[in-house]
Amino acid sequence: MDRKGFDVKILDCTLRDGGYYTNWDFDINLVQNYFESFNKLPVEYLEIGYRSNPMKSYLGEYFYCPPHVLQRCKKSSNKKLVIILNEKDVRAKDAEALLKPCIGYIDMVRLAIDPQNFKRALSLAEAVKKLGFEVGFNVMYMSAWENQKEFLGQIREVNGIADYFYMVDSFGGVYPEEVKKTYDIVRNQTDVKIGFHGHNNLQLGLINTLTAIDCGVSIVDATVTGMGRGAGNLSTELLLTALNAKGKLEENLDFNALSKVVDPFAKLQTSYGWGSNLSYMVSGAHSLPQKEVMEWVTKRYYSLNSIIRALSNQSKGIKDN
Amino acid sequence: MDRKGFDVKILDCTLRDGGYYTNWDFDINLVQNYFESFNKLPVEYLEIGYRSNPMKSYLGEYFYCPPHVLQRCKKSSNKKLVIILNEKDVRAKDAEALLKPCIGYIDMVRLAIDPQNFKRALSLAEAVKKLGFEVGFNVMYMSAWENQKEFLGQIREVNGIADYFYMVDSFGGVYPEEVKKTYDIVRNQTDVKIGFHGHNNLQLGLINTLTAIDCGVSIVDATVTGMGRGAGNLSTELLLTALNAKGKLEENLDFNALSKVVDPFAKLQTSYGWGSNLSYMVSGAHSLPQKEVMEWVTKRYYSLNSIIRALSNQSKGIKDN
Repeated sequence: MDRKGFDVKILDCTLRDGGYYTNWDFDINLVQNYFESFNKLPVEYLEIGYRSNPMKSYLGEYFYCPPHVLQRCKKSSNKKLVIILNEKDVRAKDAEALLKPCIGYIDMVRLAIDPQNFKRALSLAEAVKKLGFEVGFNVMYMSAWENQKEFLGQIREVNGIADYFYMVDSFGGVYPEEVKKTYDIVRNQTDVKIGFHGHNNLQLGLINTLTAIDCGVSIVDATVTGMGRGAGNLSTELLLTALNAKGKLEENLDFNALSKVVDPFAKLQTSYGWGSNLSYMVSGAHSLPQKEVMEWVTKRYYSLNSIIRALSNQSKGIKDN
Repeated sequence: MDRKGFDVKILDCTLRDGGYYTNWDFDINLVQNYFESFNKLPVEYLEIGYRSNPMKSYLGEYFYCPPHVLQRCKKSSNKKLVIILNEKDVRAKDAEALLKPCIGYIDMVRLAIDPQNFKRALSLAEAVKKLGFEVGFNVMYMSAWENQKEFLGQIREVNGIADYFYMVDSFGGVYPEEVKKTYDIVRNQTDVKIGFHGHNNLQLGLINTLTAIDCGVSIVDATVTGMGRGAGNLSTELLLTALNAKGKLEENLDFNALSKVVDPFAKLQTSYGWGSNLSYMVSGAHSLPQKEVMEWVTKRYYSLNSIIRALSNQSKGIKDN
């Protein structure tokens, strides 16, 4: 990486990924301060939430991003705005109803995709593309791709449909050498621009993201204070501080603006407590779903040794007794 | 790294490095639980604190480690116990008075050394060695060594005196490639066993430590929950979980014991709040003393931009106005 030619784009997805902690409700002043601060920071995209069909249980406004939210965000921000669709809950036929209200407000629509649903996701991606949006094709569980030959053989089908093909380290368990290996596999399949979304279970968010940048990805994700599901993400302030110190940013980083956006989220973190802990480390290191690890740990009925043994056996397909 | 031949020793220095937050006072039950849990964990050494001449201000019992503390620790632990001396406050002539009470309780004495005081530290190390202890020669500020040709030329003088020559990333600002480079420099100077002590300002503690292990170091440090000065250290639970998942540990890791020692320190962390934050990231990324960054930030009188500019100029030798 040298400064000349550093054109990697940064996407901040604090409101979207952080919503897992607040049920996608955020104080209006917090959000206003978020947009105003980011107007002064070298970040290209802000992902503000999901668009979704109505769900049974209560979910806050950034899970649905209704038109008044889209308008408010657009008014406050000079960045490209992004929403994401949960591919498992959205079909191609739903795209128009969900996304027409986004036209003029949203620049990119991303899809969160289980590699097993690759084919189905492609047709959703086509429908999104037809509506005129940039398309981010975010494929989850990258630590498990190596054994998914069928999926790997399909990657090239995103050509001409996706603007970014994202490697998502859902378990937060990949190491830099695996980032390189997976990047090479994907690059050999497609010339679509590649993105990286890391989780921080093993505190490898920064090094994996810098490694992805060295490999040649075009876009990387981060969230303020790392706010995000489970152990959370690479923090935006760490990524920007590191890139700034390496002389990679075009202008000197505005630490006042950065500190202004970090402070209120750091306060929220003391209540919600995202960040890594022993359970998340275990789920990351063994590629176990952190939701399941957390559910077992919360019960506090079984010892950690037996939980880990049970989940490891489960992930290997061994029946636990 | 493969399991066969993995003989890297782990040193946990929670009480010593964590003492910066508690003023070296720890609840007796917390300490008892700490030793009992570690008796079941694959860690070779436990560093319990400093030995020191009396200081002006109050400092707790693990700063002085008087004989009754040494006895209590030894009684509770089946590990090798370690204390550290602050080289700047201790001369070779003090060694006997400070260390005679440690004989029979303490296996290794480490010295925290500014590379500028290398020569003086050598004579202290000789005095320590004569008393029959293993000697750890912990040299700070490794991110600045590249420009300290005089010091680099002296490293070979530790041959025959030190048991471990430690590279200490005091600013928490080195990247894996710098760990490799510095390891090679040191290895070319001496055949003494090499150690690595990382800080976590940029959340690079784990990857730097694994890199050091790949390079061939013989010993690495960590602390429970990363408790330690400023942004803190690589956490012992993360290191052990990662090594266990990679199949590097001789026996399956006892997650019950690990969880039992982590829980009470995690509770302490909610009061004391160690871990990285924007100020520590900045001090790490720019190799600025985090103590100074914190002092300026606490005043909250200057903007973060002007603090960083002032400290950066200071570290470059430019006078601030």
